[in-house]
Amino acid sequence: MQKVTPERARVHNTQLVFRTIYREGPISRAAIARATLLTRPTVSDVVAGLIEQGMVEEVGLAPSSGGRRAILLRAVADSRYLVGVDLAREEFCGALINLRGEIKERLTLPLDGRDGDAALALVFDLIDRLVDSTHVPLLGIGVGAPGLVDAENGILQQSVNLSWRHIPLRSLLQKRYDLPVYLANDCQVAALAEYTFGDDRERNKNLVVINVRWGIGAGIVVDGQLLHGNPVGAGEIGHVTVVDGGERCACGNYGCLETIASTRAIIRRAQEIARSDPSSPLHQFAADPESITMEAVCQAFNAGNEAVRQVVNEAGRMLGISAASLVGVLGRCRLLIAGNVRCFGQFLLDAVRDEMLQRTLLSLARDTEVGFTSLGSDIVLLGASALVLPHELGDSQL
Amino acid sequence: MQKVTPERARVHNTQLVFRTIYREGPISRAAIARATLLTRPTVSDVVAGLIEQGMVEEVGLAPSSGGRRAILLRAVADSRYLVGVDLAREEFCGALINLRGEIKERLTLPLDGRDGDAALALVFDLIDRLVDSTHVPLLGIGVGAPGLVDAENGILQQSVNLSWRHIPLRSLLQKRYDLPVYLANDCQVAALAEYTFGDDRERNKNLVVINVRWGIGAGIVVDGQLLHGNPVGAGEIGHVTVVDGGERCACGNYGCLETIASTRAIIRRAQEIARSDPSSPLHQFAADPESITMEAVCQAFNAGNEAVRQVVNEAGRMLGISAASLVGVLGRCRLLIAGNVRCFGQFLLDAVRDEMLQRTLLSLARDTEVGFTSLGSDIVLLGASALVLPHELGDSQL
Repeated sequence: MQKVTPERARVHNTQLVFRTIYREGPISRAAIARATLLTRPTVSDVVAGLIEQGMVEEVGLAPSSGGRRAILLRAVADSRYLVGVDLAREEFCGALINLRGEIKERLTLPLDGRDGDAALALVFDLIDRLVDSTHVPLLGIGVGAPGLVDAENGILQQSVNLSWRHIPLRSLLQKRYDLPVYLANDCQVAALAEYTFGDDRERNKNLVVINVRWGIGAGIVVDGQLLHGNPVGAGEIGHVTVVDGGERCACGNYGCLETIASTRAIIRRAQEIARSDPSSPLHQFAADPESITMEAVCQAFNAGNEAVRQVVNEAGRMLGISAASLVGVLGRCRLLIAGNVRCFGQFLLDAVRDEMLQRTLLSLARDTEVGFTSLGSDIVLLGASALVLPHELGDSQL
Repeated sequence: MQKVTPERARVHNTQLVFRTIYREGPISRAAIARATLLTRPTVSDVVAGLIEQGMVEEVGLAPSSGGRRAILLRAVADSRYLVGVDLAREEFCGALINLRGEIKERLTLPLDGRDGDAALALVFDLIDRLVDSTHVPLLGIGVGAPGLVDAENGILQQSVNLSWRHIPLRSLLQKRYDLPVYLANDCQVAALAEYTFGDDRERNKNLVVINVRWGIGAGIVVDGQLLHGNPVGAGEIGHVTVVDGGERCACGNYGCLETIASTRAIIRRAQEIARSDPSSPLHQFAADPESITMEAVCQAFNAGNEAVRQVVNEAGRMLGISAASLVGVLGRCRLLIAGNVRCFGQFLLDAVRDEMLQRTLLSLARDTEVGFTSLGSDIVLLGASALVLPHELGDSQL
C-alpha cells in the first residue's frame, strides 16, 4: 500500500479506463464513467490520450435511449504487440501476439542439440528477428521456459535439458531490447494463457492446467493469480510419485507421474507394443520403434488397439492420482489437460476422473471439472505473452 | 481497483499509520512519515485520532540524534479485543484475544452430544458470555469450524459431526452481536494463526500447517494469503488416498490419510497393541482399551515401545506422502505440523521428511522445512481471531 500521488493517480486512471474499454467495449464514455466512478471530464481526457496513442478507437453509435446517441469506444487489438517465447525441448518458438491473443507472426528455430551459451544465442536470434519484423509498438517480452524459473527475480534457476543454471534471462533480455521482460515456467504460463485468452474467464479464475508434453507440469491459477512457488516449483507434479516401486525417473526418484503419463512414457510403451504385439497397428514400426510419434499412437488408439488403450487408461489413472492431490490441496477446481494427449479424448478424461473420484473428498471431486484446454499447441506461446499484459496494463486480473 | 475518494483516503491513511505503528513500533512520528510517505502534518493528525481512541500510546523518547529527542509511539495491545471461536469436535471453545494474540479470557463449553440447532444455541451461549465479560471494544468475531466452510459468503456448508448443512453463521452472528464476523475452516485458520502470531512472519509467508487432530486437514498460506478453495475445500488432504486398498474411511473412500495418521487412527492402533501385545506399556489398558488417550500413547512411545514407534513411523510416512504432494503443487514451502502428535518429536518429523524426499522433486523437497508449529493447542482459537485483524485493519498482510 503506497501513498497516492497525482502522477500515480493519472497512470492509475489511464490503466483503469483502458482496462474497462478492453474488457467491456464497445462502451460509451458515460458508461466508462459509471463503471469506474471517475468524472466525465476525467474520462474524456483519458480517452483522448488513448485515442491519440492509437490504443482506443471510436466504432459507431450506441442505440438511442431517448437523447443524443453516445459514441462507442473499443480497444484496438493490433495497437500493441506482445512478444511470446516458448523455450520448448527441441525447438524455440516465438511469436508476435496482439492484445487479444491473436498470433500475428510466428517463428520457430530448431535447437539442434544446442545448449548453454549457444542455446542462449538462439533465444536472442529468435527475438531479434521478431522485433525487427514489425513497426507496431511492443508492450514487452514474455518467456515460458522449462524447469525451475524464478519469476520474481527473472532467473532461470535450472533447465536440465538446456544445461542452464542461474541464467538471469530477464536482465539479459531487458538490456538487449529495452523492453519489459517477464518469465515463468512453461506449464505455469499455459494456465495463464487459458485464464487470459481461454473460453471462460470467470470459471478459469481457479484453474489447473496439466500440461502433458515430454514432461508433465501443472499451472495453477488461484483467484486470477498464477501460483509460482516460493520462489519456484509450483505445479511440479510430474515428479511426485504415483507408483510405489515404479520406474526410475531422470530426477532420481522412482515412479514419478512423468514415468507413466508423459508423451515420452506413452511413446516408450508404444515402442514395446510395436516390438511385442504383432496384432497391433504399431507393429509396422517393429523394425524402427524409435520412429513412433504421438500421431502414430493416436492412430492405433483410434483403431481400437487394446494394448494402446490400456496404456492410455493407465496414463489417465495416474493423472487421476495427481488430480486427487490437486483437489486435496486446492479444493474444488477446474482441471484442464493440455498437450497432444487430447487426441485420446473422453476416454482419457474418464480415466482421470474415475480415479480422482476414488481418491479425494467426493463432494469436492464431484464438482471438479476435468476437461481439455480450449487453446491448442500455442498455449505456452500465448501464456508467455500473457505474462506481459497484466503488468503493463496495471492489473493482475486484466 | 476503485476510485480514490477523500473519505477512502482518510480511512486508508489511518489504517496505514496504525499498521506501521503496530508492526514497527516503538516508532516516532517522523519515522512513520518516512515509512508511509505521508506528510508530517497528516501523520500527526492521524496519530492524534488514534491516541484519542486509545489504540496508540506515547512510550518515551528516542535516543538523541543531535536535535530534539522524538516521542515514540506504540500500539496498545489491549485497546481492542478479538473474539476467537474454535468449534472443535467435542467442545466449543472461545476466547477474548488482544491485538498481539494474547488470550485474555477463555471459555470452553462441552458439546455433550448436541448437534443441529442445539449446537448452534451453544455457539450463541459461548459468545454471549464472552462478549458480556468485557468492556474493551471488540474488533470482531472470528470462527474456525470443521468441515467445508464458505468463508466468502460466511456459510458452514457441511459439518458432518454437528449435522450442520448450509448454516449462514456469519449473518446469524452479525445480527446477534452487531460486529464484523469472519469464518473459515479450522485447519485453514491454524495456518493463519501461525502466520499472524507465530515465530517467523517472513518465513511463514508461504506456509502449510498440517493440523493433525481427530481428523487431518491443512491450512495453506500463499504469499501471506490464506487459501480457501473455490469457494471451499483447500487443504482437505485428510481425505486423499495414501494407501491403495487401505481401510474404509468415513468419507466413503479407502486408505485416506486420516485412516492412518490422525489421532483417531493412532489411538485405534494403540488399542490393538493394548489387546495383543503383553510386553507393551499399553497392555495395562487391555481390559479397557477405549480409555487410551494420546497421552498414554506418547508415554508408551517415550518408553521405547517398538510397536507404538512403528505406528508413529507409519503415520509419519503417510504424512510424508501428503507432504510430497503439497510440495508438488505449491513448490518449496514451510511445512509445520500442529496437534498433540508433536509429542512424537523429531522421530515423527524424520519419518515425514524421509518419505517426502523420495516422492517429490529433490531440489524442492530438500529446501522444504518440516517442523512443528510454534503455537500450541490454542492455534485454532488464535487463528479464528486472526481472521478479523487484516480485514478490520485494512491490510490482508498485516
